[in-house]
Amino acid sequence: MSTNTQALQAEVDRLRLELKTLQVEAGVEKISIGNYLLTRLAQLGVTDLVEDNPQIDWVGNCNELNAAYAADGYARIKEGSIGVLTTTFGVGELSAMNGIAGAFSEMVPVLHIVGVPNTVQQKTRPLLHHTLGDGRYDAYGKAASQFTICQQYLMDTHTAAEKIDHAITECITKARPVYLTLPTDLVYREISSERLKIPLSHDIPFNQPEMEQAVVDLIYDRVQAADGDVVVIVDACVIRHNVRKEVDELLKATGFPVYATPMGKTAVDESYFRYGGIYVGSLTHPDVKEKVENAKLILSIGSLGSDFNTGNFSYNIPKTRQIEFHSTYTEVNFARFDNIGMKHMLPKLTERLRDFYHPGHRLPVPAFIKQLPEENTPVISHLWFWPRVGYFFKPKDVIVTETGTANFGILDVPLPSGAVLLNQILWGSIGWSVGSTLGAALAAKDVGMERVILFVGDGSLQLTVQEISPMIRKGLKPIIFVLNNKGYSIERYIHGKHRRYNDIADWKWSSLLDTLNDGGKYPTASYIVNNKEELNGLLDNEAFATADKLQLVEVMMEALDAPQALERQAELTGKGNAYAAAATA
Amino acid sequence: MSTNTQALQAEVDRLRLELKTLQVEAGVEKISIGNYLLTRLAQLGVTDLVEDNPQIDWVGNCNELNAAYAADGYARIKEGSIGVLTTTFGVGELSAMNGIAGAFSEMVPVLHIVGVPNTVQQKTRPLLHHTLGDGRYDAYGKAASQFTICQQYLMDTHTAAEKIDHAITECITKARPVYLTLPTDLVYREISSERLKIPLSHDIPFNQPEMEQAVVDLIYDRVQAADGDVVVIVDACVIRHNVRKEVDELLKATGFPVYATPMGKTAVDESYFRYGGIYVGSLTHPDVKEKVENAKLILSIGSLGSDFNTGNFSYNIPKTRQIEFHSTYTEVNFARFDNIGMKHMLPKLTERLRDFYHPGHRLPVPAFIKQLPEENTPVISHLWFWPRVGYFFKPKDVIVTETGTANFGILDVPLPSGAVLLNQILWGSIGWSVGSTLGAALAAKDVGMERVILFVGDGSLQLTVQEISPMIRKGLKPIIFVLNNKGYSIERYIHGKHRRYNDIADWKWSSLLDTLNDGGKYPTASYIVNNKEELNGLLDNEAFATADKLQLVEVMMEALDAPQALERQAELTGKGNAYAAAATA
Repeated sequence: MSTNTQALQAEVDRLRLELKTLQVEAGVEKISIGNYLLTRLAQLGVTDLVEDNPQIDWVGNCNELNAAYAADGYARIKEGSIGVLTTTFGVGELSAMNGIAGAFSEMVPVLHIVGVPNTVQQKTRPLLHHTLGDGRYDAYGKAASQFTICQQYLMDTHTAAEKIDHAITECITKARPVYLTLPTDLVYREISSERLKIPLSHDIPFNQPEMEQAVVDLIYDRVQAADGDVVVIVDACVIRHNVRKEVDELLKATGFPVYATPMGKTAVDESYFRYGGIYVGSLTHPDVKEKVENAKLILSIGSLGSDFNTGNFSYNIPKTRQIEFHSTYTEVNFARFDNIGMKHMLPKLTERLRDFYHPGHRLPVPAFIKQLPEENTPVISHLWFWPRVGYFFKPKDVIVTETGTANFGILDVPLPSGAVLLNQILWGSIGWSVGSTLGAALAAKDVGMERVILFVGDGSLQLTVQEISPMIRKGLKPIIFVLNNKGYSIERYIHGKHRRYNDIADWKWSSLLDTLNDGGKYPTASYIVNNKEELNGLLDNEAFATADKLQLVEVMMEALDAPQALERQAELTGKGNAYAAAATA
Repeated sequence: MSTNTQALQAEVDRLRLELKTLQVEAGVEKISIGNYLLTRLAQLGVTDLVEDNPQIDWVGNCNELNAAYAADGYARIKEGSIGVLTTTFGVGELSAMNGIAGAFSEMVPVLHIVGVPNTVQQKTRPLLHHTLGDGRYDAYGKAASQFTICQQYLMDTHTAAEKIDHAITECITKARPVYLTLPTDLVYREISSERLKIPLSHDIPFNQPEMEQAVVDLIYDRVQAADGDVVVIVDACVIRHNVRKEVDELLKATGFPVYATPMGKTAVDESYFRYGGIYVGSLTHPDVKEKVENAKLILSIGSLGSDFNTGNFSYNIPKTRQIEFHSTYTEVNFARFDNIGMKHMLPKLTERLRDFYHPGHRLPVPAFIKQLPEENTPVISHLWFWPRVGYFFKPKDVIVTETGTANFGILDVPLPSGAVLLNQILWGSIGWSVGSTLGAALAAKDVGMERVILFVGDGSLQLTVQEISPMIRKGLKPIIFVLNNKGYSIERYIHGKHRRYNDIADWKWSSLLDTLNDGGKYPTASYIVNNKEELNGLLDNEAFATADKLQLVEVMMEALDAPQALERQAELTGKGNAYAAAATA
């Protein structure tokens, strides 16, 4: 189906659903509310969640925060689907709150289903366990409303299906978390299954045609005025709002050079010959910086201008030379066009800009290549480590990097075609990558991705370590690189380089998998690499690289070594915090 | 000082502080805002928190939820002090939210200090990491306001001291969590240290004297009408609102029989000869039930009528025979007297009720004793396990029980004089006991308690397992009994007895301490006990009982064994949830 037909079909489906809501139905097939919800999720391709549904598999997490992280990782890999977690009233849902807020911040579609007391109790509000002791049954929903775009409270059979459909539709079209309560007494109550025949639509509304045309014309004029001296920057929302394909077509049609931000890394295939690597303001490699900042016009697609994503707000690109494409609006220099979203406009723009394709590719793009430095020491430095693992990556790898050294270290490593990078640069909750890896590994199997490779510091891993257990139990086979630098290195750089509060306990990482292993049902392997030679040996070992079991590699690094980009970013952040000089002992 | 003089002194101190707020000060000694806060905490006897203050020791937790649990456990043991945790903006504070809400629900004084962006950023709201991406810097405080009784946002040097004092005073007098933000740029800014000379007062306001007298008279009349046929029930708020001493004096002066609820266990010395054990509605032992429910008058002190604390609301005590004492009000049958709190009234009541002391103790009290059943099987059953560990306990033990089998199993075990029990029966967040044990063990050293003994199920321990690491690192020596029944037994009883979602991964618990040990600086020991004989051998081993190092005991139990009280409670809860019959496969 063409995009137009799809959107029309979606509109028809929406209208049919509205009709169903109003129609009185008799003699229809019945389904329990619980199964209605599960059927809707199965329609979206959610395959991992709950027992007793043949299409969906139950994943028990060790705790709720980790479950939220896993749902987040699942949604990031399984584009077009959503991540789902279920928790209990009060204790469970609040434990998950940081993970849900992270999905809100980073725009990841996660459905949070909360099992709540029965509908009579919701009204009489007895002093049940998991309550605050003062009858405020609405306190948790109020807190959740800060971090979800939609809250639906199921309370009866008449509105349940409509509320479920609304919650899921909001989640998939706006790519953000949604909160849905399910009282115990409604789970098995029966409702009509009629609505299930009409699929929920992912599609977002069309732009108003005349306005869209005017914006496309305006952009065409700007490109012409720039004489085709145009570069593209891709950012997080290209991934989150699912316009990778549209962007790819624009790039191929125009031949414009393209760069990515840290959060946009792998939005464009990093082996594409017109791709020049990462732009991150003042932290950018000089060759890239010059090319981006001197272009006459910059098309910025899906930008998310957070501190760590912009070199601490150090873009040197005036608005007069910039056009921004977002999911719900477009900005051409200073003019803002609300409700002109990129998803539907980009294909039209691509058609208009074909004229600017230049067979000789007039604008040069710096080569984005790995550079393995010559170092006269066996110590594994960040400067050497990241390009070295670059040679280990393969197409279809899912690479997950934790906030801290890993997020910065991976930036300068070109990833193979088809590889995907997951990070959480805006929200930056340490420990996220571990739960996220679980979810990503589950989703990877469904979408045909292959190895899942996690880079996490020893400090971060301690927050969420138990989530390795369900990975083992579900037979998943990620490779986990634990960068052991004896503490919170990113915090050492920001504040308190030698402070005790940035040190952590020294765990015996090599015995962790054996401790968490579920009775040894699946094999695992652990390694310690103390120096370059040992790491080289491991990475070159074919059996290791096959990733046919869960493997943990403890990489011994120095406490105060860090990727250069991190050192510079931390310096800027420390200044922003404006501690007095006395503090930086 | 007598209670009266103390209260007057507190009032004087309060007035002096108010004056300080209004006075313009010149030439006074200066202190940084950060140190002002730390000094206030040190004055309250908080000894564990932050580096660089000679009176306070830094405890790094593995994650923020565990830190909140630890602060909760610390406050429960160190009565009159508070628990303190510090987290970072957004990611950290939200991770702690379930722990804070638990302290709210269970009335535990916890101060949550959140490090937030600098005061300029609070106003300009840039797109920093740890933000929601939409400039809503107030979202976290709004969520926190659902679960804390007071929120103070430090924004300048003029009001910082007053806000800090207000936050801490609310925390200590109302015994509930408080939220305090500290922007990075204010930490080292200097303010006057004058206010620090005036201590913050724990004392709560006097009751209005005439009204109080009238209530005491009314209660006297009721006791007289009951002809001294009176029993006392002590509950959670006797502990939380610090009236153990006042209750003890009332009991000694009157000789009235006394019983405790599950949450009130150890509020009264369990070896006291007029103490008859636990009253928990329909789940009560028949001898106790008859004695309590047939008394002509019941004095219910500090009650907290939650489902699990009342045998699912099955008290058989009409209001006409009941007087309730609370921290801020009193209820005599149907009459409610607001602002007549128990702290100041109980001593007056004690004096008035001395007349009813009966040297021969007319009302008999059932003996509360351990009963070790004869069982013809080596299997460790709950029925046998709990009385058996009863013989292991000593005075000055701190006993922590996790939600689930342990909370119910401990109820029928009389604890030695001076022993203290910690549980979280109202909030019921599984995993709480592990963080709480860390905090309790730190506090125990300060207050002269000795061994700390945790009972936790394997399912619960998986949620928060990493917090054993700081226990080891700080040289703490709790004994951790891991009740291994391969999953969430309490949930099996409530719903889904044979469902896969109540199973968990089988960890090698005996290698856990070795994995988490901080380079082996402190010794630890792990044991597996498979049967009664092995458990007897271990408990009778003097070296083990000395608790001179951190020890973990894995107790092998059957998946579907549980204390009887739990089985009955779970049945009632399951009915309340009102699942359809089809569900209980």
